[in-house]
Amino acid sequence: MAEFLVFIDNTDLWALPRDEFVAVVEREQAAGLALLEKGTLQKLWRLPGEKGNVGIWSATDADELHEALQSLPIFPYARIQVRALATHPLHTGDYTFAR
Amino acid sequence: MAEFLVFIDNTDLWALPRDEFVAVVEREQAAGLALLEKGTLQKLWRLPGEKGNVGIWSATDADELHEALQSLPIFPYARIQVRALATHPLHTGDYTFAR
Amino acid sequence: MAEFLVFIDNTDLWALPRDEFVAVVEREQAAGLALLEKGTLQKLWRLPGEKGNVGIWSATDADELHEALQSLPIFPYARIQVRALATHPLHTGDYTFAR
Amino acid sequence: MAEFLVFIDNTDLWALPRDEFVAVVEREQAAGLALLEKGTLQKLWRLPGEKGNVGIWSATDADELHEALQSLPIFPYARIQVRALATHPLHTGDYTFAR
Amino acid sequence: MAEFLVFIDNTDLWALPRDEFVAVVEREQAAGLALLEKGTLQKLWRLPGEKGNVGIWSATDADELHEALQSLPIFPYARIQVRALATHPLHTGDYTFAR
Amino acid sequence: MAEFLVFIDNTDLWALPRDEFVAVVEREQAAGLALLEKGTLQKLWRLPGEKGNVGIWSATDADELHEALQSLPIFPYARIQVRALATHPLHTGDYTFAR
Amino acid sequence: MAEFLVFIDNTDLWALPRDEFVAVVEREQAAGLALLEKGTLQKLWRLPGEKGNVGIWSATDADELHEALQSLPIFPYARIQVRALATHPLHTGDYTFAR
Amino acid sequence: MAEFLVFIDNTDLWALPRDEFVAVVEREQAAGLALLEKGTLQKLWRLPGEKGNVGIWSATDADELHEALQSLPIFPYARIQVRALATHPLHTGDYTFAR
Amino acid sequence: MAEFLVFIDNTDLWALPRDEFVAVVEREQAAGLALLEKGTLQKLWRLPGEKGNVGIWSATDADELHEALQSLPIFPYARIQVRALATHPLHTGDYTFAR
Amino acid sequence: MAEFLVFIDNTDLWALPRDEFVAVVEREQAAGLALLEKGTLQKLWRLPGEKGNVGIWSATDADELHEALQSLPIFPYARIQVRALATHPLHTGDYTFAR
Repeated sequence: MAEFLVFIDNTDLWALPRDEFVAVVEREQAAGLALLEKGTLQKLWRLPGEKGNVGIWSATDADELHEALQSLPIFPYARIQVRALATHPLHTGDYTFAR
Repeated sequence: MAEFLVFIDNTDLWALPRDEFVAVVEREQAAGLALLEKGTLQKLWRLPGEKGNVGIWSATDADELHEALQSLPIFPYARIQVRALATHPLHTGDYTFAR
Repeated sequence: MAEFLVFIDNTDLWALPRDEFVAVVEREQAAGLALLEKGTLQKLWRLPGEKGNVGIWSATDADELHEALQSLPIFPYARIQVRALATHPLHTGDYTFAR
Repeated sequence: MAEFLVFIDNTDLWALPRDEFVAVVEREQAAGLALLEKGTLQKLWRLPGEKGNVGIWSATDADELHEALQSLPIFPYARIQVRALATHPLHTGDYTFAR
Repeated sequence: MAEFLVFIDNTDLWALPRDEFVAVVEREQAAGLALLEKGTLQKLWRLPGEKGNVGIWSATDADELHEALQSLPIFPYARIQVRALATHPLHTGDYTFAR
Repeated sequence: MAEFLVFIDNTDLWALPRDEFVAVVEREQAAGLALLEKGTLQKLWRLPGEKGNVGIWSATDADELHEALQSLPIFPYARIQVRALATHPLHTGDYTFAR
Repeated sequence: MAEFLVFIDNTDLWALPRDEFVAVVEREQAAGLALLEKGTLQKLWRLPGEKGNVGIWSATDADELHEALQSLPIFPYARIQVRALATHPLHTGDYTFAR
Repeated sequence: MAEFLVFIDNTDLWALPRDEFVAVVEREQAAGLALLEKGTLQKLWRLPGEKGNVGIWSATDADELHEALQSLPIFPYARIQVRALATHPLHTGDYTFAR
Repeated sequence: MAEFLVFIDNTDLWALPRDEFVAVVEREQAAGLALLEKGTLQKLWRLPGEKGNVGIWSATDADELHEALQSLPIFPYARIQVRALATHPLHTGDYTFAR
Repeated sequence: MAEFLVFIDNTDLWALPRDEFVAVVEREQAAGLALLEKGTLQKLWRLPGEKGNVGIWSATDADELHEALQSLPIFPYARIQVRALATHPLHTGDYTFAR
């Protein structure tokens, strides 16, 4: 599986009328729980003070990641930045690059 | 425990003479494994193509985090950015802000 | 307690109709005084010429800080940046890193 | 296979003594041709006026990409930025997101 | 033919009413296929999580490229960045600059 | 008294030979304590992971602040950013701007 | 007196309906002349092509500067950046820092 | 005469209703031709893919340049950046600075 | 012919020992005059106060432009930014995009 | 006369050996006083905490400004940014643009 660091900025979401905002967040919570369940979303954190989050996501590839992100109810309002992650030698012991 | 997203850029490390580079990385590997062991470092990833990493760290507070980072053999050569992380309601179910 | 440096940009608040602006600021003043009282907000400064402020906040952790910030009446309109703060050795005398 | 857009800035390479510069570039040419041969590097372009390039790379995942980039003779001198690429619906016809 | 690396950010497109959005994307798909057919557009990728794409375009010159981009149904809503591409010596073998 | 938010980046200090580094930091500690004593420096925090600090300084005016900063042993190696601070109405109760 | 370099960007002002724009600018002219008269505003320049200005302001301190700026009719529409200014030794002859 | 490099970004112009857009562009074409005629505008280029242009302008001074730019029908919608240009010694032969 | 806007920053050149600096600039003057003669370089301006220039270059394509830039004696020390230029309708009268 | 806002960053100057630093600053003081005398330099301020200054300069045109800046003893070490200034209507009363 490929892992990704994903920043999601939901500032624009907060500009919605209150009832719409509540409805989208409700659907977003359900979608998020499903993705947690499926393992596509490993863990999500809030950036304190900000209207967004950062998370560790995993998918077979960038296509599957995009599908998951695009399926989120917040997608139309979200500004998303994705960074590909590679395995660190600390977890594999493979330090050939520095021997 | 407080969690932090930590970006470590080791570009300047690669400017060292080769033998010094190898020695520092060797000590860094040991220090990193100890921090993994202790739980201060939860997980580390490489940013593909870059001379650095991103990781999820946890410590009682920012002081303890700084001590851990400052103790790393790479610290004198590293440019480090720390972002505080807060718990996301997806993991607690507390969506009062959007009810 | 953890301390944080918090920048709050309220530019979008000033785009509200005047009466709404006055109402939000009034509620914000009350909320701010309560946080001062509670010690969550240590001190707040205006950045001269700007529609925002910078302050020193303290909370048990980033979660509590986020709760406090999210509870502010201006939160929907505010763009907030939080930086974790650690104790400086000048206040503790612990200069082992440079001995 | 995963595809990546990779920017490589070799400005620091040009600070080497001339003979070292020539030697590294020579080894780099051989390494590049091997990667082209293997398909890890699809295509490389120069950014006119700049001391670097941009290319389309493909690998099973970010780990394999990092190994390829780290194996390049220029790696110690290069500043590399990688962006993950996903398939565009123009090539698959899958426009469900906009139906 | 001249080659160009083109980043297209369609964030503003997603702010349209849904039916307008669907209509523009439909026309955009047809226009994109025609440009692929003509060879003006070599290949397009999605930037995972983002509301845009990056592509390799080719045209006789910047004028023809601009005409092609300006003719796209999304043009009024798109923020486009173009970078000229030059041939890399890896594909021509011309390394005189480093001999 | 005027108050200022001052960011001091000491990255370049860490490039000094170890003994020089230790000597400068030692003199810096003494200078910092003197400024704390005098009230010119109210409070200093470390930015976790970084080779610098942020602090609240106060002086009669920008001239006196510059003199204090320029007198610091680290000044030749430091990159310093100063932001003027004004009193926030939360501390004075003067909300005429929003009445 | 403290001196400040103040950038005022009025781009948002130009988005007002024409008659409102004219009214605000008229009141702004009067306010500006009063500040010139009082010496709070020393000199103002246009940044050619831009919808804003840069000026040298002076006030007893940042509080008084903020009051003056906040009193401007354009304040709700303006994005303002303030930089504190200190006396340069060229005007005082005090070059002890370089002796 | 003074020469200036002027970037004009007309992105906001494209957000106008179509008929207004067409009307403004028509008036802009006439104004541009007049400036070309007068020599205030030496040459204008499109930045391929972008909703703007870059040009070489000349005027007796920055005041005259601002007047010309402010007189443009697009001025209310344009974001303009001006850079002063000085004569290069390549055209004057005056290389005293490097002798 | 394709036209390009080229920014050349020669800050690093000024770090050379004086005699080397003078020698490179002398060779650069000759190379620049040859490019002017050939028409590859249309016009060059100094950015006042800066150690660089901006110019309008033309070449059959980006390859030829890169060859010209890479042949400059300053190339190893220069940081160069190239922007492709397209013909503006003001010079062709082709305003179909706005009819 | 044309007026310019000029930022001069002298950080690199402080990297010189102490005696060279003192010598350059001494010559710079003399050059600065001469420019003040001549009126080319109207006023100079220190940016508190920074190793540089900001000033209002005036010259017949950008060429004369560049000559003055390039003649400064600090020029080889300085990073300079120049912004052209135009007369503000507050000083001329010409508010036709907003009538």
